[in-house]
Amino acid sequence: MISVAVLGCGYWGPSLLRNFAGSPCFRLVACADSNADRFERLAWRYPGVCFTTDYEQVLHDDAIDAVAISTPAATHYPLAREALLCGKHVLVEKPLATSVAHAQELVQMARCNGRTLMVDHTFVYTGAVRKIREIVEHEELGEVYYFDSVRVNLGLFRHDVNVLWDLAPHDLSIMDFVLQRQPVAVSATGGAHIVRPMMDVAYLTVYFDDGLLAHFHCNWLAPVKVRSIIIGGSKRLVLFDDCEPSEKVKIYDRGIDGVTSNDLYKKLVQYRLGDMYAPTLDTREALSVACEHFAACIITGQEPITGGAAGLAVVRLLEAAERSILQDSRKVTL
Amino acid sequence: MISVAVLGCGYWGPSLLRNFAGSPCFRLVACADSNADRFERLAWRYPGVCFTTDYEQVLHDDAIDAVAISTPAATHYPLAREALLCGKHVLVEKPLATSVAHAQELVQMARCNGRTLMVDHTFVYTGAVRKIREIVEHEELGEVYYFDSVRVNLGLFRHDVNVLWDLAPHDLSIMDFVLQRQPVAVSATGGAHIVRPMMDVAYLTVYFDDGLLAHFHCNWLAPVKVRSIIIGGSKRLVLFDDCEPSEKVKIYDRGIDGVTSNDLYKKLVQYRLGDMYAPTLDTREALSVACEHFAACIITGQEPITGGAAGLAVVRLLEAAERSILQDSRKVTL
Amino acid sequence: MISVAVLGCGYWGPSLLRNFAGSPCFRLVACADSNADRFERLAWRYPGVCFTTDYEQVLHDDAIDAVAISTPAATHYPLAREALLCGKHVLVEKPLATSVAHAQELVQMARCNGRTLMVDHTFVYTGAVRKIREIVEHEELGEVYYFDSVRVNLGLFRHDVNVLWDLAPHDLSIMDFVLQRQPVAVSATGGAHIVRPMMDVAYLTVYFDDGLLAHFHCNWLAPVKVRSIIIGGSKRLVLFDDCEPSEKVKIYDRGIDGVTSNDLYKKLVQYRLGDMYAPTLDTREALSVACEHFAACIITGQEPITGGAAGLAVVRLLEAAERSILQDSRKVTL
Amino acid sequence: MISVAVLGCGYWGPSLLRNFAGSPCFRLVACADSNADRFERLAWRYPGVCFTTDYEQVLHDDAIDAVAISTPAATHYPLAREALLCGKHVLVEKPLATSVAHAQELVQMARCNGRTLMVDHTFVYTGAVRKIREIVEHEELGEVYYFDSVRVNLGLFRHDVNVLWDLAPHDLSIMDFVLQRQPVAVSATGGAHIVRPMMDVAYLTVYFDDGLLAHFHCNWLAPVKVRSIIIGGSKRLVLFDDCEPSEKVKIYDRGIDGVTSNDLYKKLVQYRLGDMYAPTLDTREALSVACEHFAACIITGQEPITGGAAGLAVVRLLEAAERSILQDSRKVTL
Repeated sequence: MISVAVLGCGYWGPSLLRNFAGSPCFRLVACADSNADRFERLAWRYPGVCFTTDYEQVLHDDAIDAVAISTPAATHYPLAREALLCGKHVLVEKPLATSVAHAQELVQMARCNGRTLMVDHTFVYTGAVRKIREIVEHEELGEVYYFDSVRVNLGLFRHDVNVLWDLAPHDLSIMDFVLQRQPVAVSATGGAHIVRPMMDVAYLTVYFDDGLLAHFHCNWLAPVKVRSIIIGGSKRLVLFDDCEPSEKVKIYDRGIDGVTSNDLYKKLVQYRLGDMYAPTLDTREALSVACEHFAACIITGQEPITGGAAGLAVVRLLEAAERSILQDSRKVTL
Repeated sequence: MISVAVLGCGYWGPSLLRNFAGSPCFRLVACADSNADRFERLAWRYPGVCFTTDYEQVLHDDAIDAVAISTPAATHYPLAREALLCGKHVLVEKPLATSVAHAQELVQMARCNGRTLMVDHTFVYTGAVRKIREIVEHEELGEVYYFDSVRVNLGLFRHDVNVLWDLAPHDLSIMDFVLQRQPVAVSATGGAHIVRPMMDVAYLTVYFDDGLLAHFHCNWLAPVKVRSIIIGGSKRLVLFDDCEPSEKVKIYDRGIDGVTSNDLYKKLVQYRLGDMYAPTLDTREALSVACEHFAACIITGQEPITGGAAGLAVVRLLEAAERSILQDSRKVTL
Repeated sequence: MISVAVLGCGYWGPSLLRNFAGSPCFRLVACADSNADRFERLAWRYPGVCFTTDYEQVLHDDAIDAVAISTPAATHYPLAREALLCGKHVLVEKPLATSVAHAQELVQMARCNGRTLMVDHTFVYTGAVRKIREIVEHEELGEVYYFDSVRVNLGLFRHDVNVLWDLAPHDLSIMDFVLQRQPVAVSATGGAHIVRPMMDVAYLTVYFDDGLLAHFHCNWLAPVKVRSIIIGGSKRLVLFDDCEPSEKVKIYDRGIDGVTSNDLYKKLVQYRLGDMYAPTLDTREALSVACEHFAACIITGQEPITGGAAGLAVVRLLEAAERSILQDSRKVTL
Repeated sequence: MISVAVLGCGYWGPSLLRNFAGSPCFRLVACADSNADRFERLAWRYPGVCFTTDYEQVLHDDAIDAVAISTPAATHYPLAREALLCGKHVLVEKPLATSVAHAQELVQMARCNGRTLMVDHTFVYTGAVRKIREIVEHEELGEVYYFDSVRVNLGLFRHDVNVLWDLAPHDLSIMDFVLQRQPVAVSATGGAHIVRPMMDVAYLTVYFDDGLLAHFHCNWLAPVKVRSIIIGGSKRLVLFDDCEPSEKVKIYDRGIDGVTSNDLYKKLVQYRLGDMYAPTLDTREALSVACEHFAACIITGQEPITGGAAGLAVVRLLEAAERSILQDSRKVTL
């Protein structure tokens, strides 16, 4: 059993506690948070766990093998860095860090120290996203033309990061995992309306070198919750609607047939309406799958699916997006 | 009664014929199209109407007061220009022209000749859009923060214009009519996948000077039909879902309350979940309302709601968007 | 070409006119209605057709081969009877007649006279229902357990028949066509609220001898339009949602596995969640398919899919349902 | 603080434990279940609580003021009876008992002993149902014409009760609470397909003396989850869709205007399409509201909203429905 501690038990920490407590691979031993008020309800629920406001004590406790960091984004880097220095395996909430330089340093440190560094890109561990990856990998979509994501809500405002750093990591990590392709440029735009200059509405475009286009709409100020991704290909299209209670993934056997550019001025392009198919999905809780994977990587030494490199890839896109916004939305080459 | 002729009876022309034939204000007298094959079914349906392949004859017929132009986009300018020169009142399908210079010339000519020039921005005449205009005008939304539009489908491919010129005029004209505000800049991006270099997926951003942001997603390659507009304001939000059979317009009494930037680091922003309300809408066919308005403007000399100026405003945005795309998606000032 | 006349051009008649006029198999020659006001718009649209208020003249015109009857329900029997006597082939709007005795007489007459008698059970000719029939026929559902239909709306009130006779024929004809099974009993209940004693809400249950149960909810007073049928089987289930713009038919590969009654007190029944699949459907207009089928049956002498026998089966169920309502909703054996 | 014990911790018991543990009004002291395997996870979560397989010990423990019973339906009566005899206040999961005689005896005993007897008709405590009650109470619907409920799923099979006793109590209790009217008769039908003779599909009709009709569809074998109630009135209609993530209650301002029976043969009934309105709802967990209400009733002695009488009313309807099914679905007078 891997002894694990959770750092930060605000919004996401309690879910980590619950999953580690319920996992056969981990022994949950400690939880640190600077705000002791948060311990009350939790301490009662996890009687054997040491709750403390002293992060240092946890990080330097040799009996602890791994830590999961779910503190504000700005503290991910310093805490993960110290944890790695102390020889811990580290699971960090997204984003891995708030700059490419920091993310790179963490990746480097984990590699040198032979420790597992994993980013909690939770969606990658859902049955839906794993199924979509499988579909794309088997080239069922044909050539992939575009990836369009909408993640909007009238919801929780974060005060540590803007809407782009809050919501886009989910969809960027899905894109990275599903497409397995290197983007070449990024542009972004957004608006700050409620608590200036904190951006609360943002649009992000990611460019690939063969015409593939990815686009992301992130919005804290929408009247309804939307969580949808469309991936359009030459043979089929996928719609992932995470707000559907079931049938979250639909595959449309629709496409565009037999067109050459000569036809262009002669006739309308022919398109084909085909069957739709919604595969059964693994319904295990994604975070539980992620925790198991973290354990497996610690034990075997393999690189996690959402390891430091995957975390860095997402931070790289976010940093480029920020730069684009500062430079009047121009396209920033990666 | 105003005697009217329809030029072009391909996709949209038959709807114009049907509405003019059924209108108490118009007498439908002629229909011209370069393709006589299209006349067969129509001639039988409209026995008193003269069907001809000779546009010139129609334009120079003094017995005709007005023409409606529904030919390919590139011919809108020359046909509208000649019609105005011949002293006709002109209704043009969107877009008014394919360049700002041409659109300006048409506006100028109509003004000098004292003729009515109207663009068929049909959506502006729907009950839904008129209701939304009313809501915005009465400041029920508070400060308007953003306008987000999605118009996607696996549908008809046009061979005369790309997806931006095909689909965006609908939403740009709605935006123009509803917000009544002057944009300051535009950026756009897109991809051509099926019949290169014809763009089939596009994203367009329109900037205003006070933080208001408008964004448009136009796509010919989507698996499902989506026609939605969200307008977010400080007091309320509007969702216009044109694919809903009823309740197309929903007003959400949700908002963000009592936040100052001092609160930023102290607490989460408070948001308010309130009632939702879907007003009854006028269900008359929009094109029929538009035709009546065209007649009223001809008779009274008033400027149409979607007159030359409105048509020019849309073309200005589209032309700037094209320039942005050619210049690597940089922001183009208007 | 078969020369055809339409009797009655109120609600459904204009659709018949349009389809016969557009059909390569028919020559539309006449249209009769007691209300001449209805001719105005139609006569202009169908210039070669004789419009008359004299039904007799049409029925006795030897140049007419077939008639389509879309008059109020109570007149179906006398008009169809006379048409058959005059040697016409007859297409009758549903219901075939308002009593079993009358329906039987029509079936008998058509058989003796060697004329085609077809009931316009339009839904049977939709791509959706034909696909469902195919699925059931190939035993893809396993044993069929139940058939549940909901057809509700805030809509047109009929003054010639109550909600049961107005709406249930659609679903009863679908059931008859899809299941191909003989029901053994019927019970029904309902309420009259708006124009007493005209029933505006009704529930109908149809019993089969092996536990199969069919149930129908018909309602003129609902806030939203619902048109759904669920067919539950031991291996798969079908959902037909006619209000969906696409994916009207969904097949759920869900079922109940390996259960014996011994398990009953030991464990919960296991059910299986499987894939869902929405086949592409033929999107031709159902009435056009029906008209072609009418022509084919006239020419070849074959019995129509929705011939007199099918029409009689529906009337038999409706008559039994009426009797059940009069007898305090008791089960009426067929 | 009221000291409370939970009897039965299978499906629903854990929710009771969680709510009593989190309530400021209760001190959770014990939990009994005949199956000790269920204690493992729970005992760890509720360290101060005594877990035992000995129901008697709990019922006879004078330190316990109240018990909540969530055991199989057949044991509700004997356990509730003994608990009342031991002077406990009692909260029973639905149904209160499996016969009217037993339910009456419990009501009687609670009254004589001055103890609170409450049935856990949880839905009555949702924000949605309380809002609907308010709307009906204020006569916003006008005259109520019908109540139509659908509760279907491919879900958990119960082995202690059939689908009618499992699902209908929810909707019957909502009907009872919302309409506050006495039904006069009941009829029901159903089918047993999976584990004969356990009914897995059922339809239930409840009659009132003024034409009001209530109908319930309960189904364990449906491909999709539906939880909807429509209440139709002369002025407005309510749609309660419990599967909607938000806007669960919609009020349609649609109705039928100015109709007299003379109009019947002259013209179609006029109906009015009006606004739709979705009020904000209290989103507190219903069971938590129910537990607070149970505490308040114990303290003040007031009759619970879902007291013994309400539980008896539901059992009366279910017993009559069973009788109807045994008697070939005939209408059973209450």
